[in-house]
Amino acid sequence: MKADFINPFLTSLLEVMTTMARIDLKPGKPRVKTDRKSQGDVSGLIGMVGSQTRGSFSISFEKTLVLKVYANMLGERTDDIDDQVTDMVGEITNMVTGGAKRRLGEKGYDFEMATPAVVSGVGHEISHKVDGPRLAMSFDSQFGRAVIEICFDN
Amino acid sequence: MKADFINPFLTSLLEVMTTMARIDLKPGKPRVKTDRKSQGDVSGLIGMVGSQTRGSFSISFEKTLVLKVYANMLGERTDDIDDQVTDMVGEITNMVTGGAKRRLGEKGYDFEMATPAVVSGVGHEISHKVDGPRLAMSFDSQFGRAVIEICFDN
Repeated sequence: MKADFINPFLTSLLEVMTTMARIDLKPGKPRVKTDRKSQGDVSGLIGMVGSQTRGSFSISFEKTLVLKVYANMLGERTDDIDDQVTDMVGEITNMVTGGAKRRLGEKGYDFEMATPAVVSGVGHEISHKVDGPRLAMSFDSQFGRAVIEICFDN
Repeated sequence: MKADFINPFLTSLLEVMTTMARIDLKPGKPRVKTDRKSQGDVSGLIGMVGSQTRGSFSISFEKTLVLKVYANMLGERTDDIDDQVTDMVGEITNMVTGGAKRRLGEKGYDFEMATPAVVSGVGHEISHKVDGPRLAMSFDSQFGRAVIEICFDN
Protein backbone atom coordinates (compact mmCIF):
# COMPACT_ATOMS: atom_id res chain seq x y z
CA MET A 1 0.00 0.00 0.00
CA LYS A 2 0.99 3.60 -0.47
CA ALA A 3 1.27 3.96 3.30
CA ASP A 4 4.65 2.24 2.83
CA PHE A 5 5.76 5.30 0.91
CA ILE A 6 6.25 7.33 4.07
CA ASN A 7 9.25 5.36 5.36
CA PRO A 8 11.68 6.37 2.59
CA PHE A 9 10.85 10.04 3.25
CA LEU A 10 11.23 9.53 7.01
CA THR A 11 14.59 7.82 6.57
CA SER A 12 15.85 10.49 4.18
CA LEU A 13 14.80 13.34 6.47
CA LEU A 14 16.48 11.81 9.53
CA GLU A 15 19.63 11.20 7.48
CA VAL A 16 19.76 14.79 6.22
CA MET A 17 19.09 16.26 9.65
CA THR A 18 21.59 14.05 11.45
CA THR A 19 24.46 14.31 8.99
CA MET A 20 24.05 17.90 7.78
CA ALA A 21 22.47 19.72 10.72
CA ARG A 22 23.52 17.48 13.63
CA ILE A 23 19.97 17.56 14.97
CA ASP A 24 18.19 14.42 16.12
CA LEU A 25 14.52 14.56 15.30
CA LYS A 26 12.20 12.26 17.18
CA PRO A 27 9.62 10.89 14.77
CA GLY A 28 5.99 10.58 15.83
CA LYS A 29 3.67 7.94 14.48
CA PRO A 30 2.80 8.06 10.80
CA ARG A 31 -0.87 8.73 10.33
CA VAL A 32 -3.41 9.02 7.56
CA LYS A 33 -4.77 12.52 7.86
CA THR A 34 -8.43 13.16 8.31
CA ASP A 35 -8.06 16.88 8.94
CA ARG A 36 -6.99 18.77 5.87
CA LYS A 37 -4.24 21.14 6.91
CA SER A 38 -0.75 21.27 8.29
CA GLN A 39 0.80 24.36 9.75
CA GLY A 40 4.26 25.85 9.84
CA ASP A 41 6.28 29.04 9.56
CA VAL A 42 8.28 27.96 6.51
CA SER A 43 7.50 25.03 4.20
CA GLY A 44 9.04 23.38 1.18
CA LEU A 45 6.68 21.83 -1.38
CA ILE A 46 7.47 19.65 -4.37
CA GLY A 47 5.40 17.83 -6.97
CA MET A 48 5.97 14.18 -7.95
CA VAL A 49 4.93 12.51 -11.21
CA GLY A 50 5.08 8.77 -11.77
CA SER A 51 3.72 6.50 -14.46
CA GLN A 52 1.06 5.11 -12.10
CA THR A 53 0.30 8.02 -9.80
CA ARG A 54 1.14 11.61 -9.01
CA GLY A 55 1.33 13.55 -5.79
CA SER A 56 2.93 16.19 -3.66
CA PHE A 57 5.30 16.31 -0.71
CA SER A 58 5.70 19.04 1.88
CA ILE A 59 7.93 19.67 4.85
CA SER A 60 6.96 22.41 7.31
CA PHE A 61 9.20 23.81 10.03
CA GLU A 62 8.57 25.91 13.08
CA LYS A 63 10.69 29.04 12.97
CA THR A 64 12.79 28.14 16.03
CA LEU A 65 13.75 24.79 14.49
CA VAL A 66 14.55 26.08 11.00
CA LEU A 67 16.82 28.81 12.41
CA LYS A 68 18.71 26.18 14.43
CA VAL A 69 19.01 23.97 11.33
CA TYR A 70 20.33 26.97 9.41
CA ALA A 71 22.88 27.81 12.09
CA ASN A 72 24.13 24.21 12.20
CA MET A 73 24.17 23.59 8.43
CA LEU A 74 25.57 26.94 7.34
CA GLY A 75 27.58 27.92 10.39
CA GLU A 76 25.88 31.36 10.49
CA ARG A 77 23.12 32.70 12.65
CA THR A 78 20.08 34.61 11.47
CA ASP A 79 16.96 35.71 13.28
CA ASP A 80 14.67 35.85 10.26
CA ILE A 81 13.34 33.49 7.63
CA ASP A 82 15.22 35.28 4.86
CA ASP A 83 16.21 34.23 1.31
CA GLN A 84 19.15 32.18 2.61
CA VAL A 85 16.85 30.22 4.92
CA THR A 86 14.25 29.60 2.19
CA ASP A 87 17.06 28.50 -0.16
CA MET A 88 18.13 25.99 2.47
CA VAL A 89 14.55 24.74 2.90
CA GLY A 90 14.34 24.30 -0.89
CA GLU A 91 17.56 22.28 -0.78
CA ILE A 92 16.32 20.14 2.11
CA THR A 93 13.09 19.51 0.17
CA ASN A 94 15.15 18.39 -2.83
CA MET A 95 17.45 16.20 -0.73
CA VAL A 96 14.67 14.47 1.21
CA THR A 97 12.58 13.85 -1.92
CA GLY A 98 15.66 12.78 -3.89
CA GLY A 99 16.64 10.32 -1.16
CA ALA A 100 13.10 8.91 -1.07
CA LYS A 101 13.04 8.68 -4.88
CA ARG A 102 16.22 6.62 -4.84
CA ARG A 103 14.95 4.33 -2.08
CA LEU A 104 11.55 3.89 -3.74
CA GLY A 105 13.20 3.31 -7.13
CA GLU A 106 15.07 0.34 -5.64
CA LYS A 107 11.66 -1.14 -4.80
CA GLY A 108 10.33 -0.56 -8.32
CA TYR A 109 8.39 2.64 -7.62
CA ASP A 110 9.68 5.29 -9.99
CA PHE A 111 8.72 8.93 -10.06
CA GLU A 112 10.12 12.20 -11.33
CA MET A 113 10.43 15.28 -9.15
CA ALA A 114 9.30 18.76 -10.12
CA THR A 115 11.11 21.79 -8.67
CA PRO A 116 10.50 22.93 -5.09
CA ALA A 117 8.72 26.07 -3.98
CA VAL A 118 9.16 27.48 -0.50
CA VAL A 119 6.41 29.27 1.39
CA SER A 120 7.10 31.55 4.33
CA GLY A 121 4.64 33.28 6.61
CA VAL A 122 4.04 32.68 10.30
CA GLY A 123 1.35 30.04 10.85
CA HIS A 124 0.52 29.46 7.18
CA GLU A 125 -1.52 26.35 6.35
CA ILE A 126 -1.01 23.83 3.57
CA SER A 127 -3.73 21.67 2.08
CA HIS A 128 -2.72 19.04 -0.47
CA LYS A 129 -5.45 18.61 -3.08
CA VAL A 130 -5.40 14.92 -3.91
CA ASP A 131 -8.11 12.31 -4.07
CA GLY A 132 -5.96 9.59 -2.50
CA PRO A 133 -4.28 9.15 0.89
CA ARG A 134 -2.65 11.98 2.83
CA LEU A 135 0.14 10.58 4.97
CA ALA A 136 1.57 12.79 7.70
CA MET A 137 4.27 12.50 10.31
CA SER A 138 5.54 15.00 12.84
CA PHE A 139 9.05 15.22 14.26
CA ASP A 140 9.94 16.81 17.55
CA SER A 141 13.20 18.19 18.82
CA GLN A 142 14.29 20.47 21.62
CA PHE A 143 14.32 23.31 19.08
CA GLY A 144 10.82 22.85 17.70
CA ARG A 145 8.75 20.74 15.38
CA ALA A 146 8.74 19.70 11.72
CA VAL A 147 5.91 17.99 9.85
CA ILE A 148 6.06 16.08 6.56
CA GLU A 149 3.14 15.16 4.34
CA ILE A 150 3.09 12.81 1.37
CA CYS A 151 -0.09 12.84 -0.69
CA PHE A 152 -1.16 10.89 -3.77
CA ASP A 153 -3.93 10.70 -6.28
CA ASN A 154 -5.61 7.31 -6.45
CA MET B 1 12.40 30.99 -25.46
CA LYS B 2 10.67 29.83 -22.37
CA ALA B 3 9.24 33.35 -21.96
CA ASP B 4 6.69 32.20 -24.57
CA PHE B 5 5.42 29.75 -21.98
CA ILE B 6 3.59 32.46 -20.05
CA ASN B 7 0.94 33.15 -22.71
CA PRO B 8 -0.82 29.77 -22.49
CA PHE B 9 -1.14 30.25 -18.72
CA LEU B 10 -2.39 33.81 -19.19
CA THR B 11 -4.98 32.72 -21.75
CA SER B 12 -6.16 29.82 -19.61
CA LEU B 13 -6.52 31.99 -16.50
CA LEU B 14 -8.53 34.67 -18.31
CA GLU B 15 -10.74 31.96 -19.83
CA VAL B 16 -11.43 30.34 -16.45
CA MET B 17 -12.11 33.66 -14.75
CA THR B 18 -14.38 34.98 -17.50
CA THR B 19 -16.43 31.87 -18.11
CA MET B 20 -16.63 30.43 -14.60
CA ALA B 21 -16.42 33.47 -12.31
CA ARG B 22 -17.62 36.24 -14.64
CA ILE B 23 -14.70 38.42 -13.56
CA ASP B 24 -12.57 40.30 -16.06
CA LEU B 25 -8.97 40.41 -14.94
CA LYS B 26 -6.75 43.07 -16.47
CA PRO B 27 -3.34 41.53 -17.17
CA GLY B 28 -0.19 43.52 -16.43
CA LYS B 29 3.01 43.07 -18.40
CA PRO B 30 4.77 39.73 -18.16
CA ARG B 31 8.13 40.13 -16.54
CA VAL B 32 11.17 38.10 -15.68
CA LYS B 33 11.47 38.34 -11.94
CA THR B 34 14.59 39.63 -10.30
CA ASP B 35 13.10 39.77 -6.82
CA ARG B 36 12.48 36.36 -5.38
CA LYS B 37 9.06 36.40 -3.82
CA SER B 38 5.41 36.83 -4.58
CA GLN B 39 2.79 37.53 -1.98
CA GLY B 40 -0.82 36.58 -1.49
CA ASP B 41 -3.42 35.47 1.03
CA VAL B 42 -4.17 32.15 -0.66
CA SER B 43 -2.07 30.43 -3.35
CA GLY B 44 -2.26 27.31 -5.47
CA LEU B 45 1.01 25.61 -6.39
CA ILE B 46 1.67 22.75 -8.78
CA GLY B 47 4.75 20.98 -10.07
CA MET B 48 5.41 20.26 -13.76
CA VAL B 49 7.68 17.57 -15.18
CA GLY B 50 8.62 17.39 -18.87
CA SER B 51 11.19 15.38 -20.76
CA GLN B 52 13.36 18.47 -21.29
CA THR B 53 12.70 20.56 -18.22
CA ARG B 54 10.80 20.73 -14.97
CA GLY B 55 9.29 23.58 -13.04
CA SER B 56 6.54 24.96 -10.87
CA PHE B 57 3.51 27.18 -11.30
CA SER B 58 1.75 29.29 -8.70
CA ILE B 59 -1.29 31.50 -8.61
CA SER B 60 -1.75 33.82 -5.62
CA PHE B 61 -4.91 35.74 -4.80
CA GLU B 62 -5.69 38.61 -2.50
CA LYS B 63 -8.42 37.64 -0.06
CA THR B 64 -10.98 40.14 -1.40
CA LEU B 65 -10.60 38.77 -4.93
CA VAL B 66 -10.73 35.09 -4.02
CA LEU B 67 -13.90 35.58 -1.97
CA LYS B 68 -15.55 37.31 -4.94
CA VAL B 69 -14.42 34.50 -7.27
CA TYR B 70 -15.90 31.99 -4.81
CA ALA B 71 -19.22 33.85 -4.60
CA ASN B 72 -19.49 34.01 -8.39
CA MET B 73 -18.34 30.45 -9.14
CA LEU B 74 -20.20 28.68 -6.34
CA GLY B 75 -23.14 31.01 -5.82
CA GLU B 76 -22.45 31.16 -2.06
CA ARG B 77 -20.81 33.81 0.06
CA THR B 78 -18.15 33.23 2.67
CA ASP B 79 -16.01 35.65 4.66
CA ASP B 80 -13.12 33.31 5.31
CA ILE B 81 -10.56 31.37 3.32
CA ASP B 82 -12.03 28.04 4.43
CA ASP B 83 -11.72 24.49 3.03
CA GLN B 84 -14.27 25.21 0.29
CA VAL B 85 -12.26 28.21 -0.88
CA THR B 86 -8.95 26.32 -0.86
CA ASP B 87 -10.64 23.45 -2.75
CA MET B 88 -11.71 25.98 -5.38
CA VAL B 89 -8.18 27.43 -5.58
CA GLY B 90 -6.86 23.89 -6.09
CA GLU B 91 -9.37 23.38 -8.91
CA ILE B 92 -8.46 26.71 -10.53
CA THR B 93 -4.77 25.71 -10.30
CA ASN B 94 -5.58 22.42 -12.06
CA MET B 95 -7.73 24.10 -14.71
CA VAL B 96 -5.24 26.84 -15.54
CA THR B 97 -2.30 24.44 -15.67
CA GLY B 98 -4.35 21.88 -17.61
CA GLY B 99 -5.38 24.51 -20.18
CA ALA B 100 -1.78 25.63 -20.55
CA LYS B 101 -0.62 22.00 -20.88
CA ARG B 102 -3.08 21.45 -23.74
CA ARG B 103 -2.05 24.67 -25.50
CA LEU B 104 1.67 23.97 -25.06
CA GLY B 105 1.17 20.35 -26.16
CA GLU B 106 -0.20 21.64 -29.49
CA LYS B 107 3.13 23.45 -29.95
CA GLY B 108 5.15 20.35 -29.13
CA TYR B 109 5.97 21.16 -25.51
CA ASP B 110 4.75 18.29 -23.39
CA PHE B 111 4.75 18.07 -19.63
CA GLU B 112 2.96 16.16 -16.91
CA MET B 113 1.30 17.86 -13.96
CA ALA B 114 1.74 16.85 -10.32
CA THR B 115 -1.10 17.46 -7.85
CA PRO B 116 -1.79 20.95 -6.49
CA ALA B 117 -1.24 22.14 -2.94
CA VAL B 118 -2.95 25.23 -1.59
CA VAL B 119 -1.36 27.56 0.93
CA SER B 120 -3.38 29.97 3.03
CA GLY B 121 -2.16 32.63 5.44
CA VAL B 122 -2.44 36.38 5.14
CA GLY B 123 0.56 37.87 3.36
CA HIS B 124 2.47 34.62 2.92
CA GLU B 125 5.36 34.64 0.45
CA ILE B 126 6.31 32.09 -2.21
CA SER B 127 9.78 31.58 -3.58
CA HIS B 128 10.21 29.14 -6.48
CA LYS B 129 13.57 27.38 -6.23
CA VAL B 130 14.67 26.96 -9.84
CA ASP B 131 17.88 27.77 -11.63
CA GLY B 132 16.15 29.02 -14.76
CA PRO B 133 13.77 31.92 -15.53
CA ARG B 134 11.01 33.04 -13.17
CA LEU B 135 8.20 34.55 -15.23
CA ALA B 136 5.58 36.56 -13.41
CA MET B 137 2.44 38.42 -14.33
CA SER B 138 -0.06 40.28 -12.17
CA PHE B 139 -3.76 40.72 -12.87
CA ASP B 140 -5.89 43.52 -11.48
CA SER B 141 -9.60 43.75 -10.98
CA GLN B 142 -11.96 45.94 -9.00
CA PHE B 143 -12.01 43.18 -6.37
CA GLY B 144 -8.27 42.81 -5.90
CA ARG B 145 -5.17 41.31 -7.44
CA ALA B 146 -3.93 37.90 -8.57
CA VAL B 147 -0.35 37.00 -9.50
CA ILE B 148 0.88 34.01 -11.48
CA GLU B 149 4.43 32.70 -11.66
CA ILE B 150 5.87 30.09 -14.00
CA CYS B 151 9.39 28.93 -13.18
CA PHE B 152 11.74 26.44 -14.85
CA ASP B 153 15.02 24.75 -14.37
CA ASN B 154 17.50 25.35 -17.17
